[in-house]
Amino acid sequence: MKAGSATPPPEDLRKTYPALVEGRDRAGRTILVCEHASAAMPAPWGTLGLPEAQRLAHIAWDPGALGLARGLAARLEATLVHAPISRLIYDCNRPPDLAGAMPARSEIHDIPGNGGIDAAERLRRTAAVYLPFHQGLHALVAERLALGRAPVIITIHSFTPVYFGRPRELELGVIHDRDTTLATLILSEARARTPLVSDLNVPYSAADGVAHMLAVQATPYNLPNAMLELRNDLIATPAAQEAMAATLAPVLTAALARLGGEGGPQ
Amino acid sequence: MKAGSATPPPEDLRKTYPALVEGRDRAGRTILVCEHASAAMPAPWGTLGLPEAQRLAHIAWDPGALGLARGLAARLEATLVHAPISRLIYDCNRPPDLAGAMPARSEIHDIPGNGGIDAAERLRRTAAVYLPFHQGLHALVAERLALGRAPVIITIHSFTPVYFGRPRELELGVIHDRDTTLATLILSEARARTPLVSDLNVPYSAADGVAHMLAVQATPYNLPNAMLELRNDLIATPAAQEAMAATLAPVLTAALARLGGEGGPQ
Repeated sequence: MKAGSATPPPEDLRKTYPALVEGRDRAGRTILVCEHASAAMPAPWGTLGLPEAQRLAHIAWDPGALGLARGLAARLEATLVHAPISRLIYDCNRPPDLAGAMPARSEIHDIPGNGGIDAAERLRRTAAVYLPFHQGLHALVAERLALGRAPVIITIHSFTPVYFGRPRELELGVIHDRDTTLATLILSEARARTPLVSDLNVPYSAADGVAHMLAVQATPYNLPNAMLELRNDLIATPAAQEAMAATLAPVLTAALARLGGEGGPQ
Repeated sequence: MKAGSATPPPEDLRKTYPALVEGRDRAGRTILVCEHASAAMPAPWGTLGLPEAQRLAHIAWDPGALGLARGLAARLEATLVHAPISRLIYDCNRPPDLAGAMPARSEIHDIPGNGGIDAAERLRRTAAVYLPFHQGLHALVAERLALGRAPVIITIHSFTPVYFGRPRELELGVIHDRDTTLATLILSEARARTPLVSDLNVPYSAADGVAHMLAVQATPYNLPNAMLELRNDLIATPAAQEAMAATLAPVLTAALARLGGEGGPQ
């Protein structure tokens, strides 16, 4: 590690950062996921050498995504699983062999604390963040399957309105892994029920590697899945997140109803 | 649970049966897996109501597979991961929502202790066997990825020479999940280098759900993968398992060399 910090105390080297689970016992069929929920950068990593403005920007997390996910979870009676620390420490939506899992550069910003990290540090972050997140989520998925309650997995993300200097008109992107069914239904309902500028597999798609969590958790079990990407200026405040949850909950409910399958609350 | 056993003591209800890992630090690229390595039926499940002959038959495990896998692991410098208890308690190559994960019937045999098990028992076995096995293997895969040593996953199985009363001429089946590359190379080398009656995707294929472990562990990470199925009369004794390992190790080494990718020991 660079960033000029002293060697962390041994207890910090063994600490893990498990997935946070809210509403585990809720009756709904959906598991909502938020891999980029938090901008927290705990010891032993500290600031990664970034000024505060960058530590709170979209490169560190998906602003607004957790608030939106909580609003949706309450309305869908869904369980919510989210990661407790910044994607710049470890991006739980990327596999451990990808540079982007611990990026040395994100959009136009260098990440000093991620420059030149060695194999031992990559392994440490994988063990501390990636594995506990995915194994916690996997345990929940397996539990639901064992109980005969095959879940639907929907992950909530946000994207920056300006990327590499170019403004984006898109407001809602719906992305899928191998199974297109649920994403297609959600897009159709979003266009019918909301004024949001919406499209499929934008601003990026599974071909860009952004569906990793779905590929690990949903696809091997043939679980319906989708990724929602909201432009983050639309969910910048708690009130806006609640309003967007109120807009999107009926979209998801309608899409899940068209999906068929299990009865009971969606 | 049926099978007339008394309620197990509480400590047995919490016990887990993790994946067994041999040769974790070996230098080779391959992770060998053996989901059906063991016929052990520990308390609290006991015999599942089966007579001894059936508890030691192919319905309970893949006879010879572990010995063959160990012989191959030694020759390939591979790490070996195997399940510690019978597939009749939990079949680690099946997802928790499939009846076949805890089968009430296997080939022509009823499994009394698996008849009418309830959701709580399905959940208990999933938590005790399936999750520890897959999470142990997943941790090993993630570790190798973090270290820049993307593994190849090859799983070793055996099949019964007579199935539903019909003899099988096949001696070696090579099966793949979504990526056909490695299985095709192995079949080609097996036909060129051995007299074994060999074919692709027999005696069953991913369409029959037999590639679940590969779908969970290899496919999400784009890892080359294959499943070998040996007719179990060919690997019935330790000497026969060693001889088959000596026959198949050069097949796998040649296939891995044609695969390309990482250098070093295959």
